Amino acid sequence: MLVCERLCSFPFSQWIDHMGNVHGRVDGLNPSSKALLIGSHLDTVVDAGFFDGSLGIVSAIAALKALRVGGTLGRLVRPVEVIAFSDEEGVRFQSTFIGSAAVAGILPDSALQYSDKSGATVQEVLQRNSLQATKENLHQLKYDPDSVWGYAEVHIEQGPVLERVGMPLGVVKGIAGQTRLKVTVRGSQGHAGTVPMSMRHDPMVAAAELIVLLENVCKHPEDFLSFDDHCKDSSVQSLSGSLVCTVGEISPWPSASNVIPGQVVFTVDIRAMDDMGREAVIYEFSSRMYQICDRRSVSCNLERKHNAGAVMCDPELSTQLKSAAHSALRKMTNELDSEVPVLMSGAGHDAMAISHLTKVGMIFVRCRGGISHSPKEHVLDDDVWAAGLAVLAFLETHM
Amino acid sequence: MLVCERLCSFPFSQWIDHMGNVHGRVDGLNPSSKALLIGSHLDTVVDAGFFDGSLGIVSAIAALKALRVGGTLGRLVRPVEVIAFSDEEGVRFQSTFIGSAAVAGILPDSALQYSDKSGATVQEVLQRNSLQATKENLHQLKYDPDSVWGYAEVHIEQGPVLERVGMPLGVVKGIAGQTRLKVTVRGSQGHAGTVPMSMRHDPMVAAAELIVLLENVCKHPEDFLSFDDHCKDSSVQSLSGSLVCTVGEISPWPSASNVIPGQVVFTVDIRAMDDMGREAVIYEFSSRMYQICDRRSVSCNLERKHNAGAVMCDPELSTQLKSAAHSALRKMTNELDSEVPVLMSGAGHDAMAISHLTKVGMIFVRCRGGISHSPKEHVLDDDVWAAGLAVLAFLETHM
Repeated sequence: MLVCERLCSFPFSQWIDHMGNVHGRVDGLNPSSKALLIGSHLDTVVDAGFFDGSLGIVSAIAALKALRVGGTLGRLVRPVEVIAFSDEEGVRFQSTFIGSAAVAGILPDSALQYSDKSGATVQEVLQRNSLQATKENLHQLKYDPDSVWGYAEVHIEQGPVLERVGMPLGVVKGIAGQTRLKVTVRGSQGHAGTVPMSMRHDPMVAAAELIVLLENVCKHPEDFLSFDDHCKDSSVQSLSGSLVCTVGEISPWPSASNVIPGQVVFTVDIRAMDDMGREAVIYEFSSRMYQICDRRSVSCNLERKHNAGAVMCDPELSTQLKSAAHSALRKMTNELDSEVPVLMSGAGHDAMAISHLTKVGMIFVRCRGGISHSPKEHVLDDDVWAAGLAVLAFLETHM
Repeated sequence: MLVCERLCSFPFSQWIDHMGNVHGRVDGLNPSSKALLIGSHLDTVVDAGFFDGSLGIVSAIAALKALRVGGTLGRLVRPVEVIAFSDEEGVRFQSTFIGSAAVAGILPDSALQYSDKSGATVQEVLQRNSLQATKENLHQLKYDPDSVWGYAEVHIEQGPVLERVGMPLGVVKGIAGQTRLKVTVRGSQGHAGTVPMSMRHDPMVAAAELIVLLENVCKHPEDFLSFDDHCKDSSVQSLSGSLVCTVGEISPWPSASNVIPGQVVFTVDIRAMDDMGREAVIYEFSSRMYQICDRRSVSCNLERKHNAGAVMCDPELSTQLKSAAHSALRKMTNELDSEVPVLMSGAGHDAMAISHLTKVGMIFVRCRGGISHSPKEHVLDDDVWAAGLAVLAFLETHM
């Protein structure tokens, strides 16, 4: 509605597709040429802040409005389509990017039968909202790659890097690949008082040693990995800059203060821009893990629970977005020299799904404390303004 | 009943006291002289094995029977009283040594009001079983220290030391003192993908480093603690031989594989024969903990949840028990040279409560794999036999 109110006096169409994605499209000078898509998502996690993906929608609409107010909307050399994707977070149906994956044509038919905690399926929930999500309709949602020029997305960073370097905007080099592991360490359960230290096979201490090892490998991969000479520098540099490793869950069994556990299970989340580097880290961690477990006479097992390759942003599109961000920052600060930071995205975004359809690029916006998915999520008014100016400048490169 | 059947032809009395302890007493040559108490407990934990404390009762009765059969029961120079204590484990009312603490006179009046999960109190449960547990009766249970010569207890080891050294019996030097700590590490919660390694304040990795540190300190206290010159050797030796440290519980918050935790809490159980040494270990762990937490910019807090001093067994009584164990092993193996191992008890026993009444000594019996409090608990028939022979030989030193 908002989109229509602002733009209906221009050649413009708006619709909600069968997966609940909201589209608004202005045709520009060449309605039949390849379209620039700008999008993000409107859904959020429970009890979370407002900005997250919605800033990407708001800044795109604001920029188009600015073009209209300035009388230049009709000069766009290609159609521009703003898409507010549905269900990016995957909170309700435990599957991310439902809306954007449908547009990219990579959403399986089975997704219609994903169910929430009450047993209601994606299809049922959409139908209750008057959206006829059928297999046939789902197939029709897929965009023809030949009809699309590229995809740009603005999103809050959800991390602390921009705040740390004191810059409102950054350009995303790519979205990290991710592996989730489950590590199980089995030892000898025993009474906390009766088993001498020298006779223990304690999986808790083994797990602790592995967690410290993981941190070391991920902080200083150059100390652990060996690269071929010809690619050493670039690989190490690329890996060191983006590699992050996290142990978020750990659970001992039987979990009593006076019992040496018999088993400890923990999760490992490894992300990096460099897929081969990420695999090398997993291999290195894994082989050192078995050495540690052998030395401690405990058994270790490593299961791969999830794997996703990295997505690189398009260099040309990223250069345009970087220039646009630079232009926006210059307008706001009058500083000519400030370099727009280039950073990786450790979190997944709709751009990840859309990369299966077309080239993608992203701008990140600073958020307070790097906090997201929390009521504490906050973006400065000036940074929202900067984001809008950057999209505006980006659109002006398509005139 | 069993006790009566075997011994009633001798000057003998048997009774169940107001806390449910079962007593059987033979007067020997001097009914009014100080009594030797031999005991342990009959209760066990849910789904656990049979032996645990009950072996201490069975071996005492068996030894007295052997004296009767051999016609020498009347030659005991002092009364011998076998006590099967009630509720040593503390499973139902979450308080250990209820029966033996009453006999030792250290059970507080408030213990009668301890309640189980259904809300039933100790007093109510005893009354349902026709035992008039009142404050007045509780006070009457306390033995006069002048009426008691000492206390001996046979118990399964509940640890792997005797099995490792290949000996059925060992003599207990003392029961370790114990401290239970709760360590809370608070850091910065964050998205597993968006916070670079160099910007993390991850309480999980800090906790892991602390757990590895704790193991190091407890395995090699000599590398961490400084002692005064005059007591260095004995202190380090005593501490190294008995010190055990365990982390049995750990829980991160919010506990999600893709979230850097904001907080990690873990338990520490530290036991040692040397109370000052135990305190030195806690001090050393604590001060290094704060250094680690400072370095990692996380906050650490250490709470003391439980503290109990070590109990030393009486040297004279232990010498008697060691000779008795040696005699039993010689009868079974014909080996003259096998030295009876002297070990500490990391677990608590009724002897701990009774040490407030009189001198105590203990014999440990080998159990398979050191396993106790489990359906897998097992003691070899021959080792049960050895325990009975040892008590018999011990009783013969009181003739």
